[in-house]
Amino acid sequence: MPLDTTLQAELIRVANLLADAARPETLLHFRTPALVADDKGGQVFDPVTVADRAAEQAMREIIARERPQDGILGEEYGETPGTSGLTWVLDPIDGTRGYISGTPTWGVLISVADETGPLFGIIDQPYIGERFIGGFGIAEVTGPRGTHTLECIAQSKLSDATVLTTFPEVGTADEGRAFYAVAGQAKLTRYGMDCYAYALLAAGQVDLVIEAGLNAYDIQAPISVIQAAGGIVTDWDGGPAHHGGRALAAANPDIHAEAMAILQESLNG
Amino acid sequence: MPLDTTLQAELIRVANLLADAARPETLLHFRTPALVADDKGGQVFDPVTVADRAAEQAMREIIARERPQDGILGEEYGETPGTSGLTWVLDPIDGTRGYISGTPTWGVLISVADETGPLFGIIDQPYIGERFIGGFGIAEVTGPRGTHTLECIAQSKLSDATVLTTFPEVGTADEGRAFYAVAGQAKLTRYGMDCYAYALLAAGQVDLVIEAGLNAYDIQAPISVIQAAGGIVTDWDGGPAHHGGRALAAANPDIHAEAMAILQESLNG
Repeated sequence: MPLDTTLQAELIRVANLLADAARPETLLHFRTPALVADDKGGQVFDPVTVADRAAEQAMREIIARERPQDGILGEEYGETPGTSGLTWVLDPIDGTRGYISGTPTWGVLISVADETGPLFGIIDQPYIGERFIGGFGIAEVTGPRGTHTLECIAQSKLSDATVLTTFPEVGTADEGRAFYAVAGQAKLTRYGMDCYAYALLAAGQVDLVIEAGLNAYDIQAPISVIQAAGGIVTDWDGGPAHHGGRALAAANPDIHAEAMAILQESLNG
Repeated sequence: MPLDTTLQAELIRVANLLADAARPETLLHFRTPALVADDKGGQVFDPVTVADRAAEQAMREIIARERPQDGILGEEYGETPGTSGLTWVLDPIDGTRGYISGTPTWGVLISVADETGPLFGIIDQPYIGERFIGGFGIAEVTGPRGTHTLECIAQSKLSDATVLTTFPEVGTADEGRAFYAVAGQAKLTRYGMDCYAYALLAAGQVDLVIEAGLNAYDIQAPISVIQAAGGIVTDWDGGPAHHGGRALAAANPDIHAEAMAILQESLNG
């Protein structure tokens, strides 16, 4: 369903409210000595889980107030059905291992979807204070250097490309082999960026992000931001990626086709 | 030679001036479309080199004005002898591959050394606007969340530890095997942080950073910051690391000893 511009503006407003509310909740336990000590001890209190839940709770309260008719799918509290046909898809801390290591690469993922998939999304990095938004004709980042348009690299070939994934061990053994078949032909492969990798793709800094084993809430906001910036996100077969699983995020059609052919050959060849 | 507090304050002031001067020079070409286009085309103009040189030039001009009697060792322009016994060791952009990928993990490394090694150092991340300083009794970070004391994790064991290195292929084949002998016993291994990894160690977020193939200017500022925060940096044999080569940066003596024993056994066993 195409949404009218008033509704679009309303959803953009609420999405930003959610991101604003998640920032203090996620930062409260970020890089605190308590986080480190408790993570090491294996006690019951797990600060990343506490931060994750508090941030999702804060976002759910805003949705209940501002958009009570919408559904919610959240990483921590699961599904809440709605009546509007719209669903908020929330991952309060994507990249929890980055979070507990203190890296500025985790993020808050927020998107709003209809039955066709995500329509609008935000990747927010609270520590840097950087927000990547995409959808409804907007693709921009606001951060320490002001606001800039997001635009994927328009043309690239794999031999000149930079490929990102979070962990060197990508998915299953077969998925890992397929990933390295692509990465082996790229100019540069880097690791450890969590959801920030998708933001860098949308910002025109890298050519490919390849991941496996995703949940829907890990990928819906990135899909919105990357598509709005001119990029393509599919699963490794070229089908929709918004249900999770394997994701191939590419800056442009050429490199998407080149990477997908190699993934397919490795998996099925 | 122990420095008097007036000279210490002077060196701290100049080090901060250098970091201030490097910020705009490094940010001028960071995440610009020109950077991406030119990096892909393989032309003569290489923006990371341009930024690297401009930043080092700006820092050299300040040293020439403020501390003309000191020597300089810089990544881009090599050695300039001095007469004071003090040498400024400069890496204007440490983590150039992170820089060209748009990640916020590269940094400006500045330290001042005497014949015994580094005395004071700065790890500056211009995009985040975050400065980690250590030496002369100071260990602190100033960034988006204000100023905080840096303090390494006081006690840890490898089985609960987080280990960082930049690339999965660490140094030579032998060095890589030794690294994975350690990483294989750690709780979590993460990649891709460039010099930001040392900052996270000093900030009490991770337990070990292990690298090989370093230059002196890659490690002298991290040594100052980490030692000031209570940590230990040696080469893989327990000797001084400030000449470059292999570095084992550890949050505390226990985990330093545990990691070094495994590295040694792998290399010599």
